[in-house]
Amino acid sequence: MSALVCRTTAARFPPNEPIWRSPAGGLLDIDFEPRFDRVAIERRPATLWRYREAIPIDRDDAIVTFGEGLTPIVPAELGGRRIWIKQEGLFPTGSYKDRGATVLISQARRLGVRRVVEDSSGNAGAAIAAYCARAGIACDIYVPASNSRSKLAQIELYGAALHPIPGSREDTAAAVWQAAQEHYYASHSWNPFFFHGTKTFAFEIVEQLGWRAPDAVVIPTGNGTLLIGAWIGFREMRQAGVIDRLPKLYAVQAAHCAPLALSPQESSQFRPKATIAEGIAIAAPVRVEQCRQAVAETGGRIVTVSESQIIAALRETLRAGFYCEPTCAAAVAALPQVDAGGEIVVPLTGHGLKAGETLMKLLL
Amino acid sequence: MSALVCRTTAARFPPNEPIWRSPAGGLLDIDFEPRFDRVAIERRPATLWRYREAIPIDRDDAIVTFGEGLTPIVPAELGGRRIWIKQEGLFPTGSYKDRGATVLISQARRLGVRRVVEDSSGNAGAAIAAYCARAGIACDIYVPASNSRSKLAQIELYGAALHPIPGSREDTAAAVWQAAQEHYYASHSWNPFFFHGTKTFAFEIVEQLGWRAPDAVVIPTGNGTLLIGAWIGFREMRQAGVIDRLPKLYAVQAAHCAPLALSPQESSQFRPKATIAEGIAIAAPVRVEQCRQAVAETGGRIVTVSESQIIAALRETLRAGFYCEPTCAAAVAALPQVDAGGEIVVPLTGHGLKAGETLMKLLL
Repeated sequence: MSALVCRTTAARFPPNEPIWRSPAGGLLDIDFEPRFDRVAIERRPATLWRYREAIPIDRDDAIVTFGEGLTPIVPAELGGRRIWIKQEGLFPTGSYKDRGATVLISQARRLGVRRVVEDSSGNAGAAIAAYCARAGIACDIYVPASNSRSKLAQIELYGAALHPIPGSREDTAAAVWQAAQEHYYASHSWNPFFFHGTKTFAFEIVEQLGWRAPDAVVIPTGNGTLLIGAWIGFREMRQAGVIDRLPKLYAVQAAHCAPLALSPQESSQFRPKATIAEGIAIAAPVRVEQCRQAVAETGGRIVTVSESQIIAALRETLRAGFYCEPTCAAAVAALPQVDAGGEIVVPLTGHGLKAGETLMKLLL
Repeated sequence: MSALVCRTTAARFPPNEPIWRSPAGGLLDIDFEPRFDRVAIERRPATLWRYREAIPIDRDDAIVTFGEGLTPIVPAELGGRRIWIKQEGLFPTGSYKDRGATVLISQARRLGVRRVVEDSSGNAGAAIAAYCARAGIACDIYVPASNSRSKLAQIELYGAALHPIPGSREDTAAAVWQAAQEHYYASHSWNPFFFHGTKTFAFEIVEQLGWRAPDAVVIPTGNGTLLIGAWIGFREMRQAGVIDRLPKLYAVQAAHCAPLALSPQESSQFRPKATIAEGIAIAAPVRVEQCRQAVAETGGRIVTVSESQIIAALRETLRAGFYCEPTCAAAVAALPQVDAGGEIVVPLTGHGLKAGETLMKLLL
């Protein structure tokens, strides 16, 4: 029987409690035993829901889906390495965040939730808004009032209600926490169901490589939404005997904003600078300890890259035909620092069409 | 043995002649007998190349691919109808044109072509540029000099050489025809290999519906790149005995630019007006006769929709969670005029992220 588990106190709660953190204020994980039936999986449609028995939603009629997932993986030569590129921008809303949203909003429907709240002006906000539109669930997205309208257009066009909050990013966080007292918090950093969606990234890699784990996966990391998801997914597959080892997980941060790479002493002095890798510009990730564990347990590393390295990698990636957001290029830029041999997978986490103006300014 | 066949004279040419029209100036088709082995197809990766024996490229090592295709198909209720939505924006470059580009640029590589020319400032231009980038083939894209830079950014960022031509759209056409004397013309309206890529749209629908044909497919139509492709694909599957009937094909045009709907007398008076369905604003489609045949032979219809109908359908489609270009909404707007019952498929042909600014202006 699955359960929600507090990471701080180890207290357990029924899986269908409508909570997003524990009463003690701790982060929640989901204790859940997935099953993988290769023959059944391979017969199903090409969506991430083919791993049905490995996704902790206990009623089929709750599933909210656009038929997303099983994104293409192809070989490419980038950064001087022969690698696998997984095109995680090829989702309905244009980023891998749809993995998290399809599972989290399915759980919201399972719970009978009528309204969710979220704070993201970027890819997570668009993903939550789209899946709420499909589910018929009302959606309030809290964003800093300083955000430009064009960045928010996609969220608004799905029909979500935007709440621009004056002041700092912290003021926006305070506003959504207030709203989350009354409504379900569809958070891509707090809510554990989001990570049980992003974990399907790992399942797909293993299946697409012929039911084998790669040697390394190199992941742009801000909140760790994909890093932690990948870690959960590969661990679940190892536990189930589908693979016999974990790939090394490399967490890539922009040197301008690299809290994972800091010692406790350095953290107190830490002043992030702006980076073109906007999607991973997170100064204080909620699940920082899990990010560090994912890297340490798998024998990977935390890698930082400079702005000029990101720009050079971005140009190379686009000219190889992969149209992606600047954030994705951080992973390509990190390849010279990846000490693993063998098969390396790099996700391109968001579509370049999300960032047309920025790409033009940087490269044309 | 397959052959290139002139539609005007019925003259036949070897399949690997580097020609894009017949010496008599006629349009070319490909005479080719596809094979479909369902068991083999279902075992292959989820890309359009799973229909390998139905695609007229005679060497595997020529294939240029990003692992594209098998786009998701899901039920939705739009325009008062229960329909299937096929999300054709979920391609590497953001539109279904990648179907044509993967096959056409594979043929270019098969021919040993080092440089191609094309005239499209829109989705076809982006698709050809991306596949050329992956193939290492040089790419010249001719565009009217009046086009905005932002519209062309994606093409340029892939590394294609842009050739802005002063004057009218006809001046651009003259320039690319001149260039096509020396280089292979990767045209999405003339080159028949493009249509033997877009035909995979039909193959996927049939497989995804359980190896059955739907009752109708409703397709936004300008040059007819998808309409004609679908017609070829369904016919090939019927001929091979995979399906036993053709779906009705509905060609949807904006009332402001609907040459297919005109009688010969009306055509002489025809003055197109601007439409928000930019992708189908083609005043003089090269393959107009094939478009009319596709509709007539299948028992479908040519349907026109007004600008206000397109805008209303666009709003409804976005609010259902499907982020698409305005052009796609023409098909949704046409649904009240579709007299077929049963299963209706509507492709959303391009991703909304391609048209963020336009969507904002129209709807926010």
